Amino acid sequence: MDHSQEFRGKNALITGGLGFIGSNLARRLLTLGARVRIVDSARAGTGANPFNLDGIAAGIDLQVADLRDGHILAAMLDGQDYLFNLAGLVSHLDSMQFPQADLEINASCQLSIIEACRTHNPAIKIVYAGTRQVYGHSRYLPVDENHPVEPVDYNGVTKRAGELYHLVGQRVYGLQAVSLRLTNTYGPRMHCRDGRLTFLGDWIRRLFTGQPIQVYGSGRQVRDLNYVDDTIDALLLAVSKKTAGGSVYNLGSPEPVCLLDLARLMIDIYGSGSYENIPFPDDRLRIDIGDYQGDYSRIRSELGWQPGVSLAEGLKRTFDYYRQYQEHYW
Amino acid sequence: MDHSQEFRGKNALITGGLGFIGSNLARRLLTLGARVRIVDSARAGTGANPFNLDGIAAGIDLQVADLRDGHILAAMLDGQDYLFNLAGLVSHLDSMQFPQADLEINASCQLSIIEACRTHNPAIKIVYAGTRQVYGHSRYLPVDENHPVEPVDYNGVTKRAGELYHLVGQRVYGLQAVSLRLTNTYGPRMHCRDGRLTFLGDWIRRLFTGQPIQVYGSGRQVRDLNYVDDTIDALLLAVSKKTAGGSVYNLGSPEPVCLLDLARLMIDIYGSGSYENIPFPDDRLRIDIGDYQGDYSRIRSELGWQPGVSLAEGLKRTFDYYRQYQEHYW
Repeated sequence: MDHSQEFRGKNALITGGLGFIGSNLARRLLTLGARVRIVDSARAGTGANPFNLDGIAAGIDLQVADLRDGHILAAMLDGQDYLFNLAGLVSHLDSMQFPQADLEINASCQLSIIEACRTHNPAIKIVYAGTRQVYGHSRYLPVDENHPVEPVDYNGVTKRAGELYHLVGQRVYGLQAVSLRLTNTYGPRMHCRDGRLTFLGDWIRRLFTGQPIQVYGSGRQVRDLNYVDDTIDALLLAVSKKTAGGSVYNLGSPEPVCLLDLARLMIDIYGSGSYENIPFPDDRLRIDIGDYQGDYSRIRSELGWQPGVSLAEGLKRTFDYYRQYQEHYW
Repeated sequence: MDHSQEFRGKNALITGGLGFIGSNLARRLLTLGARVRIVDSARAGTGANPFNLDGIAAGIDLQVADLRDGHILAAMLDGQDYLFNLAGLVSHLDSMQFPQADLEINASCQLSIIEACRTHNPAIKIVYAGTRQVYGHSRYLPVDENHPVEPVDYNGVTKRAGELYHLVGQRVYGLQAVSLRLTNTYGPRMHCRDGRLTFLGDWIRRLFTGQPIQVYGSGRQVRDLNYVDDTIDALLLAVSKKTAGGSVYNLGSPEPVCLLDLARLMIDIYGSGSYENIPFPDDRLRIDIGDYQGDYSRIRSELGWQPGVSLAEGLKRTFDYYRQYQEHYW
């Protein structure tokens, strides 16, 4: 998609920009001629990884800061045209073990950000990284944006609260804020050290280190995946189209896949490896959402987004990256 | 409704029991033979009023405590059969001015309570005081429980988060938790000092003190109201029916009324007074929900609840109370 004019010479702030999606977004924005500022807590366990900025760090204004501090936010927002609001905790499992931290980062920080925007920079264009986790168990497939919001874990509660803060800010204060409900995103620079943030990173590390991929239960659970470049296209579109303000949009993929088939595909593309079915761990099973596939027809028709990278191609690019840089990720 | 056997000799904990609904509930539970413990922060501005326990204080175990302290919660929950979870901030206006406090009390405290229940008393039966505010602007009337949840103010966000914590606790940990989405509740012991918690209390004080009732805008906005005894019936039913676990239920009234007609009815029943239409204050208009009427057919069919006190009769009883005790309320 062509974003070539929109961002040239503009100021873009990325919260959580040391993480997987944020750092890839920073690279893209630099390519598009934007000036990029990153605010990131650099907290362990969030996916923040300094190596993610390797080669571009000199061209980025990186601020390590706690987003709970309102006075820091005012300075961060000064002069910014866009806010890519990606900071947050995404681990479902961690949210059940450390629920107050999950609430603080995902709701209290988001509230501080919205309050700072309306006070210090009400014209800034905001996109929030929401999640399909807010839907909980799918009542029907594919899941569209009218599906009931019934999260099955604490993280889903707080990600929804963060999203709602954006929508209230839009409605009450006229902020231009959009939420994208991301589904599983994968690609270079994702967290691979363990399976707390995403099962896929864990699978990649296992594949590369000669361990069998662990498939929970039957592996028949359906998921949809977006290659990170496609997710970034959606973020750029959402933040630049004024008509998007106040909306929520699902992302999604035309290639839903069950986890067993995904494991087999990964082994096939990697060229070797194995998988094993293991019993669903209790702590994961009780917050599992079952099958999921997102209906992304709203963003396709309203913003013209659709994924452009096939699953096979995306996995190939991802593996190419980790072949080169794996020592920084596990 | 007959709750005579359910609560006799049982232990009931009421959070927010110094407030309007909680204190009336405490009275009812004592009548039903329950042992009542109240935990309340007694914070100014929450509706907590020590006079609300006048005449029953000796029979109640009152604990003034901050619900954010997990270790206090463990002791509070010990041996309790029921939790009437009414603590919270309900002011829409305050939530916009002091949003972090709103989040802390309505989400962080509720999370602490759910975590304490699952850890220390997983068999306790819980009812949460939710609110129709979570729906935001009505897309259709009457609003049923399938209506989208799109709150228009911060308080709606945090009350929804509190509700979702209960539902996650029910699903993941097997807690018996129910949420009632209360609509405007009125009756003896409501907060009348100002209009921050409820416009109705403000109207009552104005009526009694010879000031005109202030009707915002045209006064054509529709509301539904429950007399507090009916709300208490619903709380008692919801907490005692095992089948209710994991559900949300609207309350509501067969007598929706526009605010102008309500003002006239109040003047008529009081026997004197006046009203004036004033411009809708900006800070209230931008978070106003427009018309609202709740569809309460789910709780009627599943739990057998329906309101029993007419609006005219409820107002009469309310006025009788304030004729006697107004000095404690304004």
